[in-house]
Amino acid sequence: MYLMSQLATATLLIKCQDRAGIVQAVSEFFYRYGANIISLDQYSTEPEGGQYFMRLEMAINDLDNIIDNMKGSFEHTVARIYQMEWKLFDNSKRKKVAILVSKYDHALLDLLWRWQQGQLDCEITCVVSNHHDLRQAVENFGVPFHQVTVSKDNKVEAEAEIQALVKDCDLLVLARYMQILSAEFTAAWHMKIINIHHSFLPAFVGADPYRQAYEKGVKLIGATAHYVTADLDQGPIIEQDVHRVSHRHHVAELRAIGQDVERSVLTRAVRWHLQNRVIVTGNKTVVFN
Amino acid sequence: MYLMSQLATATLLIKCQDRAGIVQAVSEFFYRYGANIISLDQYSTEPEGGQYFMRLEMAINDLDNIIDNMKGSFEHTVARIYQMEWKLFDNSKRKKVAILVSKYDHALLDLLWRWQQGQLDCEITCVVSNHHDLRQAVENFGVPFHQVTVSKDNKVEAEAEIQALVKDCDLLVLARYMQILSAEFTAAWHMKIINIHHSFLPAFVGADPYRQAYEKGVKLIGATAHYVTADLDQGPIIEQDVHRVSHRHHVAELRAIGQDVERSVLTRAVRWHLQNRVIVTGNKTVVFN
Amino acid sequence: MYLMSQLATATLLIKCQDRAGIVQAVSEFFYRYGANIISLDQYSTEPEGGQYFMRLEMAINDLDNIIDNMKGSFEHTVARIYQMEWKLFDNSKRKKVAILVSKYDHALLDLLWRWQQGQLDCEITCVVSNHHDLRQAVENFGVPFHQVTVSKDNKVEAEAEIQALVKDCDLLVLARYMQILSAEFTAAWHMKIINIHHSFLPAFVGADPYRQAYEKGVKLIGATAHYVTADLDQGPIIEQDVHRVSHRHHVAELRAIGQDVERSVLTRAVRWHLQNRVIVTGNKTVVFN
Amino acid sequence: MYLMSQLATATLLIKCQDRAGIVQAVSEFFYRYGANIISLDQYSTEPEGGQYFMRLEMAINDLDNIIDNMKGSFEHTVARIYQMEWKLFDNSKRKKVAILVSKYDHALLDLLWRWQQGQLDCEITCVVSNHHDLRQAVENFGVPFHQVTVSKDNKVEAEAEIQALVKDCDLLVLARYMQILSAEFTAAWHMKIINIHHSFLPAFVGADPYRQAYEKGVKLIGATAHYVTADLDQGPIIEQDVHRVSHRHHVAELRAIGQDVERSVLTRAVRWHLQNRVIVTGNKTVVFN
Repeated sequence: MYLMSQLATATLLIKCQDRAGIVQAVSEFFYRYGANIISLDQYSTEPEGGQYFMRLEMAINDLDNIIDNMKGSFEHTVARIYQMEWKLFDNSKRKKVAILVSKYDHALLDLLWRWQQGQLDCEITCVVSNHHDLRQAVENFGVPFHQVTVSKDNKVEAEAEIQALVKDCDLLVLARYMQILSAEFTAAWHMKIINIHHSFLPAFVGADPYRQAYEKGVKLIGATAHYVTADLDQGPIIEQDVHRVSHRHHVAELRAIGQDVERSVLTRAVRWHLQNRVIVTGNKTVVFN
Repeated sequence: MYLMSQLATATLLIKCQDRAGIVQAVSEFFYRYGANIISLDQYSTEPEGGQYFMRLEMAINDLDNIIDNMKGSFEHTVARIYQMEWKLFDNSKRKKVAILVSKYDHALLDLLWRWQQGQLDCEITCVVSNHHDLRQAVENFGVPFHQVTVSKDNKVEAEAEIQALVKDCDLLVLARYMQILSAEFTAAWHMKIINIHHSFLPAFVGADPYRQAYEKGVKLIGATAHYVTADLDQGPIIEQDVHRVSHRHHVAELRAIGQDVERSVLTRAVRWHLQNRVIVTGNKTVVFN
Repeated sequence: MYLMSQLATATLLIKCQDRAGIVQAVSEFFYRYGANIISLDQYSTEPEGGQYFMRLEMAINDLDNIIDNMKGSFEHTVARIYQMEWKLFDNSKRKKVAILVSKYDHALLDLLWRWQQGQLDCEITCVVSNHHDLRQAVENFGVPFHQVTVSKDNKVEAEAEIQALVKDCDLLVLARYMQILSAEFTAAWHMKIINIHHSFLPAFVGADPYRQAYEKGVKLIGATAHYVTADLDQGPIIEQDVHRVSHRHHVAELRAIGQDVERSVLTRAVRWHLQNRVIVTGNKTVVFN
Repeated sequence: MYLMSQLATATLLIKCQDRAGIVQAVSEFFYRYGANIISLDQYSTEPEGGQYFMRLEMAINDLDNIIDNMKGSFEHTVARIYQMEWKLFDNSKRKKVAILVSKYDHALLDLLWRWQQGQLDCEITCVVSNHHDLRQAVENFGVPFHQVTVSKDNKVEAEAEIQALVKDCDLLVLARYMQILSAEFTAAWHMKIINIHHSFLPAFVGADPYRQAYEKGVKLIGATAHYVTADLDQGPIIEQDVHRVSHRHHVAELRAIGQDVERSVLTRAVRWHLQNRVIVTGNKTVVFN
């Protein structure tokens, strides 16, 4: 789950009402295509009659040739019977990812380094920033860097420019991007933008959470990776973590310590999204990890 | 997974060679009996052709009347085809547990308190100790307490006496029992004795691990819950955890801090065993938690 | 710092403006009385000219006979020069503690057990509850139990009754006491009441924080020990901790998991208070641990 | 303690027999030079009469001009009376550090990045490797890179070549350097070489600890930063940490997960050494952090 697999595999995600027979129906369906189930996770909100979620990963030969037929058949048989929302991913098709960033490099560099190590199974198409500072660091990884100035006056144009740069992507990662995206932009990328917020949400929403944490005198500081919605810092939480601090740490030190938490939390959230481990339900997530 | 379920459920554990079709065959088998799969975990040591492990929990009506038939059918069909080692547990039959202890009460009391809270789904039939000290504490929980003196000279007789007291049990828990059990005794209770060792194994095998840790100057101390085999402190590890310490902590303080780790590690290991989450393979464990 | 010391010791706490020479003046003062400094911690809010805090623990012979003279001399010399707020504790005088509790026993029992083990250096004078449920559990430890019914109509009388029961105490511990104390009561016990709140404050203030956490979908749940002020759940934070959870945990499971965090956080906060490690400054704490 | 201070400061480390009056004598000595004590930590192995350790950090004007006189006076007065081993560091003189590395870049890059961020207060003079792979990555940080081939046959010459490259340094950091240094080399750099070992020592000494951990079936993997002595993996431990793993993780995944632990443990150990927080005593360390 940490390193990329070398097998030709597909991943199925399912959401439906819980009823007896789902595992049987799904496993039989794919067994007929010769699939070998590598992992299977399921979750139901209630012991009986709740909402049901499944993640199934399978190894399957000749996937490229049969996936379209398989999708069609699944839709008309199992998915219809159980009224499933579902997606089937060919894991050999790497997701395309763009990273948006401002000036802090800690989260960005950790993502790029892990990607270079083979720890993030995706194509990073480009990095977009509203500043110039990180161009060299990004280009050292062989990744294109685009600078797009954003101001109060040009927000619409700037977002259009960003949109043009990332339009082929499957995922946008805000690795400490300090501009608030418009409701139109976030709507166009529904559950396809992951942000790292530098607090343990729902504590310390909004600006300068490390200062808020310092003034409150908390004994742990945290970071939260979440999908971006029109409500600032309120989208579904994917992952969180914390680090112990004390009265001795000033705001600048909280920030430095927090950066370590931010980068590890964001990396995990992005990895889980890329591995199709995250299913959004209401304003919460089911994470099969 | 933390609190006891109120449903009539059964749990299946499987070990076999990995082949395509296992999930399909198993889920179809139980679907025909009207079972609803509540959770399903699987693990294979290799992406293809490794050793395969499954844990499946299902809700099923009228289990008491059909379980014998179900077991027979499963043995002659699915289990035969895939050459499975398997067990099927009726979760309404609570496991019977005896606790062996000497003088330290921390692990014992935590087990008894969680059991009283409904956090450990078992029947605690008795506590056996080679000392008298903990009688009152145990009897406060309404659990019978037996004292069996053990010395170099009476080891065989003492173990026979213990054996008579616990002979109906499904599990023995050594909650800091400071006597070494004989090879005969541990063989008779193969993978049915859980011990808490007060170090992060394989570091600090044997006597007085907190002193060993102090003398080595480690910066974390740990505890390990493992099945007991004839090799002292070498059986399959179920769970481990650690706690940070510093040069300031003397042996007595390491012991006091370590007790918190011991009790939480032992409780988790016992809970997972009771919930049939642990499968032993070689000298290691697969823990579906 | 975990176990009680056997030495005759005193602990000094100081708060003042930072100036050069404080350590020299303080250490010289006590050196003349033959004290040996066992531990010394200091903290200044700024590298130069900030607010200064010190905790000094010393071994000293014949303390009982000289402490009054020592206090008088210190006030007229060192404390006057540096305009210190200060306290000097004779550590052989154990603090008197009363515990208030409702029906949950997890935090209470952990406190009583550690106290029995010698891990909390205090006298527990009694436990007061607005329910009868925990009488036997408390009396098993040899501690008096008092039941005081609290309702909307009798709050003033009930608090007066509690006040009479605990009036000799140095500290009140709210070990999941589910009644809100009046502003008069908390004012009378300024910085002498420690409460455990079952969330990672400032997230989830108020009622049923585990339900709030469940509905928000957080990935960690926490607990916070703080001094009680008239503002509900807003007093100075002494200690916090968290535990990882997932979408699989319902509210009842969050509650069960959270109890483990609550009891360990509360125990640490109480221990630090008893060891005179906590200095309140504004609405925050300096904790020398 | 995380970020570099901007003050002109000095740090004093002391080791001696514990006696009354040390704090008084030391603080008075430096008070006369106009020093303001910023932090003071002390530790004694016994409540009375043990071995005593102190770390004292002070702000002091015109340090450059007075430090030599101060050192001479201290030696002839306080240090003589208490028979102290001691060192006084002018913190404006940055320590010179060389990093030795083979092919893994994770620990190296984290050190270089934190150094670039101002989180490691030192001068990194060069990186030496027995391979060519990491040249570009190092040079991107503006740090000289030297390649020195090491084989069984040229070990003496290779170490002489390395010695020539690093001879001005105060500290060597082995950031996964996969060659065993000779006893002569380690003796010449007594307590001035920090190594990161990829296990929770004393478990899994020697080669391929992740494989050893996999085969043992441990539930946590760790890393240990220690000073290098002639005994392989046996030098004084500075810092350790662990990460939870499960049966699902193969050796390659343990390695990837472990790299995160290694880099954070090594960084902390190096930072503490640079900040003069580590005192070696016997085969253990006192770490004032």
